[in-house]
Amino acid sequence: MKLVTFNENQVGRIADDQVLELDTASAREFFERDRDVPETGRRYPLAEVRLRAPIVPKKFFHTAGNFREHHDDLARVNWSHPVNKGIVFFQNVDAIIGPGDPIVYPEHLTSELDYELELAIVLGKPGKFFTAEQAAEHIGGYLVFNDITARDIQRREMESGVFSFSKAIDTFCPIGPYIVTADEIEDPHDLDMELRVNGQVRQKSNTGRMSVSIPQLVAYHSPQVYSAGDLITTGTVAGVAASTEDPFANYLKPGDVVEAEIEGIGVLRNRVVSWQDAHGTPPPAADQWI
Amino acid sequence: MKLVTFNENQVGRIADDQVLELDTASAREFFERDRDVPETGRRYPLAEVRLRAPIVPKKFFHTAGNFREHHDDLARVNWSHPVNKGIVFFQNVDAIIGPGDPIVYPEHLTSELDYELELAIVLGKPGKFFTAEQAAEHIGGYLVFNDITARDIQRREMESGVFSFSKAIDTFCPIGPYIVTADEIEDPHDLDMELRVNGQVRQKSNTGRMSVSIPQLVAYHSPQVYSAGDLITTGTVAGVAASTEDPFANYLKPGDVVEAEIEGIGVLRNRVVSWQDAHGTPPPAADQWI
Repeated sequence: MKLVTFNENQVGRIADDQVLELDTASAREFFERDRDVPETGRRYPLAEVRLRAPIVPKKFFHTAGNFREHHDDLARVNWSHPVNKGIVFFQNVDAIIGPGDPIVYPEHLTSELDYELELAIVLGKPGKFFTAEQAAEHIGGYLVFNDITARDIQRREMESGVFSFSKAIDTFCPIGPYIVTADEIEDPHDLDMELRVNGQVRQKSNTGRMSVSIPQLVAYHSPQVYSAGDLITTGTVAGVAASTEDPFANYLKPGDVVEAEIEGIGVLRNRVVSWQDAHGTPPPAADQWI
Repeated sequence: MKLVTFNENQVGRIADDQVLELDTASAREFFERDRDVPETGRRYPLAEVRLRAPIVPKKFFHTAGNFREHHDDLARVNWSHPVNKGIVFFQNVDAIIGPGDPIVYPEHLTSELDYELELAIVLGKPGKFFTAEQAAEHIGGYLVFNDITARDIQRREMESGVFSFSKAIDTFCPIGPYIVTADEIEDPHDLDMELRVNGQVRQKSNTGRMSVSIPQLVAYHSPQVYSAGDLITTGTVAGVAASTEDPFANYLKPGDVVEAEIEGIGVLRNRVVSWQDAHGTPPPAADQWI
């Protein structure tokens, strides 16, 4: 099933060129009810609906360091710290946007806006303290995540051995275009990944290059307690702008269109707009106490 | 107003030795409705109700490095990184527990369980990108937070320049005993703070020693977008076990009783219990891939 949130935050599933509405208040509730949700009988042409962020979870676990190539990439340019496997922190559920929504470039806060293509897992049911063998039944589906990051802020944060703000600013968490339920994905460890900026390929890899398998990842983080509908990202691959020879030629700029694609999971497309264009006023002065 | 969540997650306010029930589904909804919530007319003797975590927010911002004394403390024992002001990350809303709830010691994951007394702010209304001058109207109240931390896990995480898991394990976020609304606190920058373990004073300070004022802090993090009822912690003070001469004599152990107290905001009391006692079975083997 391809599960969508659309128009006035209605929930539905895609069937050919139609969206069949489901009788639930949210995609999170769909998983809380263990997918036992009837259709309403209403249907909409897919081409005419406005897709929204497919889910707003209770928690959004962010994994890093799960592709060795991302560590190697950043080590080559002497990035701040080793990117070890096992890194996890929480993303900002209020920074989530959906397909077609603008990524707002906060020009008063950063001049190094980067992209990071990631596969995200949707937790199908709650649980804690379980093993990798038990993890499969907890995996409800998959979606595409583009981890927008202000590298200059991230470097400053990492002096204290932590980062979050640089990835948590308003609109920095595009997800979508839909959730593909786990039963539709034969092998989540063999999916091609590609991120393009204005049509130019920047990241190209395959989920098979993960250091830690998806069931291991889901089990490992389970002491932190899962609610149904929670998201876990699985880490980005080589090719982020910060790791290139000329980062400033590759960082995102207002007007850029980013397409984050994972085989069988969909294409997530977002345009970058300036804070001023998005808000209609010049940005406020940035506070300088950091 | 002292706002409580009690019994079957009912919401109420304390009036002398009574709890007057409020007609709202949750403390978060109380703030979403801008506090415009009538009483139900039902009242309960305070001594007879079971207090719960006073709120489960949409987001729980965790500030660190806001008391210079905590940085100095950890620098003296050569802790991993400088603890600069401006550090922020997200806490685990599913690890929240209330007054009297057990802190479950995960003996399979850590042998260095520490405490951190903190004042937390409740956001009274939503907003983003606002100034310190505008921040006052966003502050809805205050509560006590005890930031339970597995130091051995935290050190391992910080090798990659980030940490979260070490503070996000099941039951590691005790808050309470209630929310004191902002109108009742004359000066939030002059409140005595004291944390005791089995009656012995471990941390003793005053909120006046913060490096960054509460309005500055609330404004600074506002690019990350606030929902009504969100929490922001304000950083801990000197005296955590990790900074003492003999940390292993001071780390928490099953059976310990921790009392986290802030003047005018209340006393949050929790007992530490072993994972085995809490779950009735030996803990599972810890995954070792980190």
